Amino acid sequence: MTETRERVQAWLTAFEAALHDRDVPRAAALFGADSFWRDLVAFSWNITTVEGPDGVTDLLTTRLADVDPGGFTIDGEPAEADGVTEAWLRFETRVGRGTGHLRLRDGRAWTLLTTLRELKGFEEGRPQGVEHELRPGRRSWREERETEEQTLGYEQQPYVVVIGGGQGGIALGARLRQLGVPALVLDRHERPGDQWRGRYKSLCLHDPVWYDHLPYLPFPKNWPVFAPKDKIADWLEMYTRVMEVPYWSKAEVRSARYDAAAGRWQVTVDRDGESVVLRPAQLVFATGMSGKANYPSLPGQDVFRGEQHHSSRHPGPEAYRGRKVVVIGSNNSAFDICGALWEHDADVTMVQRSSTHIVKSASLMEIGLGALYSEEAVEAGVSTERADLIFASLPYRIMHEFQIPLYEQMAERDHDFYTRLEKAGFRHDWGDDGSGLFMKYLRRGSGYYIDVGAAELVADGRIKLAHGQVDHLTETSVVLADGTELEADLVVYATGYGSMNGWVADLVDRETADRVGKVWGLGSGTTKDPGPWEGEQRNMWKPTRQENLWFHGGNLHQSRHYSLYLALQLKARYEGLPTPVYRLAEVHHPG
Amino acid sequence: MTETRERVQAWLTAFEAALHDRDVPRAAALFGADSFWRDLVAFSWNITTVEGPDGVTDLLTTRLADVDPGGFTIDGEPAEADGVTEAWLRFETRVGRGTGHLRLRDGRAWTLLTTLRELKGFEEGRPQGVEHELRPGRRSWREERETEEQTLGYEQQPYVVVIGGGQGGIALGARLRQLGVPALVLDRHERPGDQWRGRYKSLCLHDPVWYDHLPYLPFPKNWPVFAPKDKIADWLEMYTRVMEVPYWSKAEVRSARYDAAAGRWQVTVDRDGESVVLRPAQLVFATGMSGKANYPSLPGQDVFRGEQHHSSRHPGPEAYRGRKVVVIGSNNSAFDICGALWEHDADVTMVQRSSTHIVKSASLMEIGLGALYSEEAVEAGVSTERADLIFASLPYRIMHEFQIPLYEQMAERDHDFYTRLEKAGFRHDWGDDGSGLFMKYLRRGSGYYIDVGAAELVADGRIKLAHGQVDHLTETSVVLADGTELEADLVVYATGYGSMNGWVADLVDRETADRVGKVWGLGSGTTKDPGPWEGEQRNMWKPTRQENLWFHGGNLHQSRHYSLYLALQLKARYEGLPTPVYRLAEVHHPG
Repeated sequence: MTETRERVQAWLTAFEAALHDRDVPRAAALFGADSFWRDLVAFSWNITTVEGPDGVTDLLTTRLADVDPGGFTIDGEPAEADGVTEAWLRFETRVGRGTGHLRLRDGRAWTLLTTLRELKGFEEGRPQGVEHELRPGRRSWREERETEEQTLGYEQQPYVVVIGGGQGGIALGARLRQLGVPALVLDRHERPGDQWRGRYKSLCLHDPVWYDHLPYLPFPKNWPVFAPKDKIADWLEMYTRVMEVPYWSKAEVRSARYDAAAGRWQVTVDRDGESVVLRPAQLVFATGMSGKANYPSLPGQDVFRGEQHHSSRHPGPEAYRGRKVVVIGSNNSAFDICGALWEHDADVTMVQRSSTHIVKSASLMEIGLGALYSEEAVEAGVSTERADLIFASLPYRIMHEFQIPLYEQMAERDHDFYTRLEKAGFRHDWGDDGSGLFMKYLRRGSGYYIDVGAAELVADGRIKLAHGQVDHLTETSVVLADGTELEADLVVYATGYGSMNGWVADLVDRETADRVGKVWGLGSGTTKDPGPWEGEQRNMWKPTRQENLWFHGGNLHQSRHYSLYLALQLKARYEGLPTPVYRLAEVHHPG
Repeated sequence: MTETRERVQAWLTAFEAALHDRDVPRAAALFGADSFWRDLVAFSWNITTVEGPDGVTDLLTTRLADVDPGGFTIDGEPAEADGVTEAWLRFETRVGRGTGHLRLRDGRAWTLLTTLRELKGFEEGRPQGVEHELRPGRRSWREERETEEQTLGYEQQPYVVVIGGGQGGIALGARLRQLGVPALVLDRHERPGDQWRGRYKSLCLHDPVWYDHLPYLPFPKNWPVFAPKDKIADWLEMYTRVMEVPYWSKAEVRSARYDAAAGRWQVTVDRDGESVVLRPAQLVFATGMSGKANYPSLPGQDVFRGEQHHSSRHPGPEAYRGRKVVVIGSNNSAFDICGALWEHDADVTMVQRSSTHIVKSASLMEIGLGALYSEEAVEAGVSTERADLIFASLPYRIMHEFQIPLYEQMAERDHDFYTRLEKAGFRHDWGDDGSGLFMKYLRRGSGYYIDVGAAELVADGRIKLAHGQVDHLTETSVVLADGTELEADLVVYATGYGSMNGWVADLVDRETADRVGKVWGLGSGTTKDPGPWEGEQRNMWKPTRQENLWFHGGNLHQSRHYSLYLALQLKARYEGLPTPVYRLAEVHHPG
């Protein structure tokens, strides 16, 4: 046994013994003063991070007897670098099996990640498929599927209804199907994938393929690094079909009411013109971080004679050749739309309202993601699941410290680019603390552009730049706060999206939306992410202040990874397992 | 270096040196008296096996200078068991890179497999997808795809036309797309997968999932072991779409003529009512081993008042509840159809015309396939590609020697079952030499049933059994050669399929079909596989006696694995590489 392994084994043995003896102080003393235990469902029936020995004490005092953890073993070979020892762990609880990750520093735990992988007695596996025993009346797979399609939502009520059939909804739907939880995914579009098909034509994934796999069915090895939207759309449509996700297209939710006495929702759905009332126990909003458009209200919008729409409704550039277009905003959608319009000979002006963070896609791939999500990582044996867990093992409280040096590298690598960009008048930032794109994404879900080419057009003036808030519109122009007047045939509001609990206000009621509070963000106290510190992303994939109401979504990485924890929480409730939630989050912002 | 590795390295060094020196006798002397060199395209631009030092001498004398092989290295760790040393190899030729497998016995080569994996300068890889450089007029993926769909087959001629869009056609189509060879797959059904959807409802894969993956996109880990036909159909449809296989549904080929002077085919297609003439250079028949039904011609078929159809047209059991059904035949389809009819309360009689080989699916999986295609194999690191190559490394001449002991094990394991079956009057065999199912499949493509439950119904008499050839039909019955009269409301002819060159006779002409000769079979001199010995399967995946005419197909394993070699042969021709074919097979049977 290597010395490194011995060190991990010694810690683990002491930890397990303390847990076994229900000796909370002894267990807590194994954690350093600055330490973090992040638990994904395994100990807490929640997604939560506790800090330091006090946090560990609180978690264990509340949960230890019930969780009854044990069977801690080291998985693979521990590694050591810069005074930090890292190891993968396996463990069990009373009800499930888990995977863990441990970082030791000076003999104590610095970070511990515990994640639930499966519930005992409800393990996922490969079904046998067709039975090899004949009997009268045996029904075929197609017959079973047809019956299910006819009865689900009518004679048979789903246990879970998922609102929204994008990547988040179907990833969760696939997991619930595999776990045998009756679920139904509702989506208002004509067919799966239309969430992508309907967007502006130049849209593509800005994250590379290794980051984007869905559960169970990874993209094939000949899938492009950056898939165009229509190819993604085809994939999502086929995924829905082959994973047998129960899915209603053309189904728009009109309202949802919770009957606390019955523990059931009443969800009224317009299904292609027919009004259907569903009565699921659990309701999941997977309406997308980019689901609820912020459409600004501006003086003069009613007199403006040109066309105006939110970026989410932008049809693409074809109709605007030779026309004057003003795009309000300077984040991802704004750049994509401006770039495509320029490619089609429109006269484009981008209005930058506040400073924006830009990273070049190639730099982000190499420096930001390469170690975990790349062909090299795959070849080095870092599976997608491993990469997801490594990522998850970094507590949000200190994640920026890991991110800052990466963005310093990018700043250096692309120094000329940033110089040109700023010379062109573009206001660029690296986040309040220099921690760059991913922290901005987690904290506020906005404020950045992953450059896939359009930033160069701003840098060299081919896309024109203006600054400031819009004061009003005239019949033919947009007037900014400083009086600048921009002639416009089309105004695109690339003004982003509101918190997902806006959908709760629309479909349930304002009171429930406020009780649940803002969705997304960490409470970091940085721009657009007011404190206090939350420890985890608000309301995502975990119990909320409204019983049986959940939020799911995020990018493809998050949809893939966190759908597991949400699915296990729903499965446990479906099977009637006790699921006492540790430290249900306080709500500090109604949203 | 281990002793085993040293032994392999010594042989390999000597082999490479002899090849480098163009010293054919020295190279041939490295092969044992009973030895086999199987080459898949790398040395021969053919699929061929040469035997003994004389065979090696012939191959190298003809091909060595042109192939210019080198760079032989051992891949992974060689293994030794029972006096045989096995090793994986890599090597290069003038035009490509290859993978090899070697078995040494008494210091000399016993078996050598050489396979071409890729052509230099035309390596497959992951495309970048969306370009990260904006320019006026840049077109989106969807626009490019739409243009291709509109022009392919009209303004743009495909280089390859593939007739038949089942698993074989689309596996080849996917590889050709990835290799950048303009191809078009034609299929007469409404949509991809209908080749399966349209079959009898109880049809399922009798091979387990690990054996059935298609290229690039393996089934997900939650795919059933034995997939029902409609689920496979959905997968094939999805596969066609996401792999961007150029595919015309509702396209029926009416005729094909080869213009030798132009080196082009003229293929007349009925595309959903429109007559289109295609002019590809290469024409591939992927019409299926089970593509051309044998519909027997019997006296009285015209007077029979009931219903009669070939098994391939059998709609399933629903309409035959309480009816008398006679099924002619006792292979896979016959058993499947009889079983489903019995499940629906039909009165079923199976007419066995000749003895049949049956193995229980579970036994075949465990004993026959388990070492290569199973969850255990995957966990032991045997990837699908590795398994395919191990399988390919066993020369057909001696393959039965490896198979016989497996079937002896199965006979013992299922002794009671076979006793009951024979007691019920079923005539059972293990192949002429006891080598079982897979050899029957390779030799004659018929004569067996993988038992997924229906054999038990014959064993216990719930499916009735009769014997002999059909003499004639009356208005209400089937009369056998021995005078037995079987009342029938429905007669199903589960009488198998003809050689694929029957399609050539129909679409090109009889003369070409005869010149090409019988497709499938090894010339083993066993029942329905007359000699002389061919060494490889007749006409499959390799050049035929008709220039630019090819056959592709087989089960999912073969469609996956051999599509690579066929695709590389087509790619080489498309790129204008010289492709001199070593030892084009003689034709001994017109088919």
